[in-house]
Amino acid sequence: MSSSAPVTAAVLVIGDEILSGRTKDKNIGYIADYMTALGIDLKEVRVVSDDEAAIVAALNALRSTYTYVFTTGGIGPTHDDITAECVAKAFGVPLNFDPRAVAIMAERAAKTGTEMNEARMRMTRIPEGGDLVANKVSGAPGFWIGNVIVMAGIPSVMNAMLDEVAPKLKTGVKMISESVRADAREGDIGTELGAIAKAHPDTIIGSYPFVDEKGGPNTNLVIRSRDAGKLAEAKAAVEAMLKTIKAQLTR
Amino acid sequence: MSSSAPVTAAVLVIGDEILSGRTKDKNIGYIADYMTALGIDLKEVRVVSDDEAAIVAALNALRSTYTYVFTTGGIGPTHDDITAECVAKAFGVPLNFDPRAVAIMAERAAKTGTEMNEARMRMTRIPEGGDLVANKVSGAPGFWIGNVIVMAGIPSVMNAMLDEVAPKLKTGVKMISESVRADAREGDIGTELGAIAKAHPDTIIGSYPFVDEKGGPNTNLVIRSRDAGKLAEAKAAVEAMLKTIKAQLTR
Repeated sequence: MSSSAPVTAAVLVIGDEILSGRTKDKNIGYIADYMTALGIDLKEVRVVSDDEAAIVAALNALRSTYTYVFTTGGIGPTHDDITAECVAKAFGVPLNFDPRAVAIMAERAAKTGTEMNEARMRMTRIPEGGDLVANKVSGAPGFWIGNVIVMAGIPSVMNAMLDEVAPKLKTGVKMISESVRADAREGDIGTELGAIAKAHPDTIIGSYPFVDEKGGPNTNLVIRSRDAGKLAEAKAAVEAMLKTIKAQLTR
Repeated sequence: MSSSAPVTAAVLVIGDEILSGRTKDKNIGYIADYMTALGIDLKEVRVVSDDEAAIVAALNALRSTYTYVFTTGGIGPTHDDITAECVAKAFGVPLNFDPRAVAIMAERAAKTGTEMNEARMRMTRIPEGGDLVANKVSGAPGFWIGNVIVMAGIPSVMNAMLDEVAPKLKTGVKMISESVRADAREGDIGTELGAIAKAHPDTIIGSYPFVDEKGGPNTNLVIRSRDAGKLAEAKAAVEAMLKTIKAQLTR
């Protein structure tokens, strides 16, 4: 469903391995692109370590502020996987072995010839009231409770889980965008660009310097809006401004 | 200088372009590796949009919790670069044109044949009491105020700024680590690994599943500690456990 009020989201990445540098996160950028495509505004990301107090505090701060919170990491079978108990604690609900999850894991164990041991049973613990999020890659499910969607940290598994939940998410009016290559230094157009941004309050104008193919300083301008007409107006103003500035600089 | 108490850090990434997915962050992983090498514990990362209230709130939360806060992004010449005013607001100090920064920018403008206009003057605004952080790549400096170090978002510039401040940072006893390839499924060793983690409280043991060269499920175990002896003890326990489990599984 699509709503006219903005739908917002936050991502909570859980894991020592990201903070130590051992693993380079690939999930933040992927979820950012995914949310933009859905018309959901990703407003904040946090990365915290495998520490109960840190996870619970971040979860409670984010879930009370945004429409959805997506977590990645910490739902495996080992002692450092503590996301499920932290979510249960944040919601104040018991963490139970979930019969649906047990069935999935037992079927998987039978198929792979592995044992349904204590470690694998850890992965069947779901906070009471949570719905499972299917994992087509490796079996062990994520879950969805309240406005919090708990996913694996392994990118391929996370991507599959996001595909499962996406059709069920509320979405807003999509943000559309236009890029304009300035062929000018950011410092030469900053003041005029700021005036355009002020005059077009229903658009968001971003300025991103880059080094171009000639090795010189250049700037990409990105204009975003939920309204195509207002986007076009702001883009026209930006293009007119660039023309004027370039004429002045080459005088 | 090196201290025996842990030295901690947080990273605050500022920028709509990261949250929209347009730009993929490369700074978090770089700073994580850098902090680990210095013996500083990176404890938290946040990504927020170009929004004053969000930036000020995140800055105040992080700077009151960790030894250092490193920010990236939002110090360019355009209207969407609002990091300097947000830092000034968080610290409750005026934001002035800094004569040292003006001199750097004026010299650079003379060299590049550009104008010292209003936009470029924006980049000379430094919260009162802040020290400059030199930018050997493109001139416009970052700054350091209290325990907050403000750097550019462009990776090459951020990296140069980090090199400038690194020698001045307090550092802790370095965390050392050993990796052990388990050649076992995470689910087959989880319980035993948890017992080892509990019995070796001065180490941090992480378990990271991966798909190995034969296409099968495998696990890397990483043991970290500030004490080489305790690290060696935990590693030996992990290796003995793996031997026992593998003997059981192949019985």
